[in-house]
Amino acid sequence: MSLLVVGSVAFDSVETPGASRDRVIGGSAVYCSYGASYFTAVCLVGVVGEDWPEDHTRWLRSRGIDTLGLETVAGARTFHWKGKYLPDMNERETLELQLNVFAEFDPNLPEEYRNCPFVFLANGAPTLQRKVLAQVAPPRFVVADTMDIWIHNELPALKQLLREVDGLVLNDSEARLLTGSLNLVQAGHDVLRMGPRFVVIKKGEHGAMFFSEQETYALPAFPTERVIDPTGAGDSFAGGMMGYLASRGEVGPDTLKTAIAYGTVVASYNVEDFSLDRMKQIERADLVQRMKQYQTMLNLDLPVVQ
Amino acid sequence: MSLLVVGSVAFDSVETPGASRDRVIGGSAVYCSYGASYFTAVCLVGVVGEDWPEDHTRWLRSRGIDTLGLETVAGARTFHWKGKYLPDMNERETLELQLNVFAEFDPNLPEEYRNCPFVFLANGAPTLQRKVLAQVAPPRFVVADTMDIWIHNELPALKQLLREVDGLVLNDSEARLLTGSLNLVQAGHDVLRMGPRFVVIKKGEHGAMFFSEQETYALPAFPTERVIDPTGAGDSFAGGMMGYLASRGEVGPDTLKTAIAYGTVVASYNVEDFSLDRMKQIERADLVQRMKQYQTMLNLDLPVVQ
Repeated sequence: MSLLVVGSVAFDSVETPGASRDRVIGGSAVYCSYGASYFTAVCLVGVVGEDWPEDHTRWLRSRGIDTLGLETVAGARTFHWKGKYLPDMNERETLELQLNVFAEFDPNLPEEYRNCPFVFLANGAPTLQRKVLAQVAPPRFVVADTMDIWIHNELPALKQLLREVDGLVLNDSEARLLTGSLNLVQAGHDVLRMGPRFVVIKKGEHGAMFFSEQETYALPAFPTERVIDPTGAGDSFAGGMMGYLASRGEVGPDTLKTAIAYGTVVASYNVEDFSLDRMKQIERADLVQRMKQYQTMLNLDLPVVQ
Repeated sequence: MSLLVVGSVAFDSVETPGASRDRVIGGSAVYCSYGASYFTAVCLVGVVGEDWPEDHTRWLRSRGIDTLGLETVAGARTFHWKGKYLPDMNERETLELQLNVFAEFDPNLPEEYRNCPFVFLANGAPTLQRKVLAQVAPPRFVVADTMDIWIHNELPALKQLLREVDGLVLNDSEARLLTGSLNLVQAGHDVLRMGPRFVVIKKGEHGAMFFSEQETYALPAFPTERVIDPTGAGDSFAGGMMGYLASRGEVGPDTLKTAIAYGTVVASYNVEDFSLDRMKQIERADLVQRMKQYQTMLNLDLPVVQ
């Protein structure tokens, strides 16, 4: 089944302790769509300016990502984020943020997109996320991401959104901010009470936690020595997760867990180079292979004294 | 087989955001011995002052912890640590540190201890750890813990120790400090090159990582909502791990992994109350039960698209 992804499409300028890149392809919707494209067809909803090269769009299309929903605004510029990672790579500073076309983004979904059964609302204002959602016909399986800025500035809309989605994906500091709970297990349960059927808390190099009424679990990140650029890790995680779910066409507990594991594996590749450079080099077979290593790593079906 | 544990025996005064306790039983060797006592007989090597109640010693003995190696120094006081946890419980401040008898600790092992096949050198100066090790007859399986203070103040002795042990257990910030590598996977491999056959990096609420020449893996912590006092989490982890290994009498890769999982489970109980209060309430059967939950949580033997 196909996956609808709405979010930012951007140029990123990234400095890490080791190297830097200027105006490379990025944005939450791009990372997510690409991560999902290993598994399923994607319908991308986003906006770019005149400075966005047609080549980038063609390249997304070559991955099975439909770009009918990618609007180009004449006489305007694409969202541009400039950031710098601190030496331990878990922290970063935003040096410059030019929302440009993204500031006025008000998507009108192509007819063809309005029956997508799987929907991922990547980073964006909850008001915007809700507008998109209103255009997608039920039944649909909807997961949203959010960020600190929306928790600070649009909490009522975010809380409304949480009653309309199946799942929420957010990072650890955002979960703490949203709930006021410093203990992440508690925070996960607190978010559940706000509406979604499940919550995924992303912890970067420490993996992810899953919460539903029935289950609580933590899965570690895949340990990789080569962390070049963490940009897009969370979005590619969500992409791998949502793409796998859409490919399966069901969302039972086992499928959700495998989806989170695939998200983990996709993200572990994504951080191994700038932009989407590492993801471009790999195929689904590489994901399956690393997934097997990940399964072996977590296999505790071992002799246990009673 | 029996496990020799050498380290601090202490009174702890602990403040957390929720409550506090004064002069409760603590110390690395106590937490470790207790964690191991679910699995095996323990020989404890430590030192206390005249203020240490005989009841505490009797209580340790009732757990199968031999206290022949617990020296009492007349006219002196027991090691006392006073600390305060910050709101997120991952950080703490030491408010007071009275080494007292521990400052002059120079253990002379009872004859009965000198053939212990499993040895855990808990927190202590590497010089002291090496002195103890010199008194234990090979063949023996030795794992050491260390701390930032020894990396700063006794690096040459620590490096010597690393060539004499089978394994090293240390926390994430210590691994970064010891190696200069901010990436933990890299840090783990760097420590391996210093001598030990395996390294375990403890990450508190984020679990643990394992490194050997053959294997690298990460295991998450058991997600518990009830984190009352993290004191002794790392030592009870090491106790569970070493106790399980000693009970099995072998240290193959599968046994090591199960041991790390048991360490994780023991630590998850330990943080659920002050001092050893929670550990006192549970039996081996509780550990086995939570271990099964942990195994289920990590079970990814699920349908996977190819």
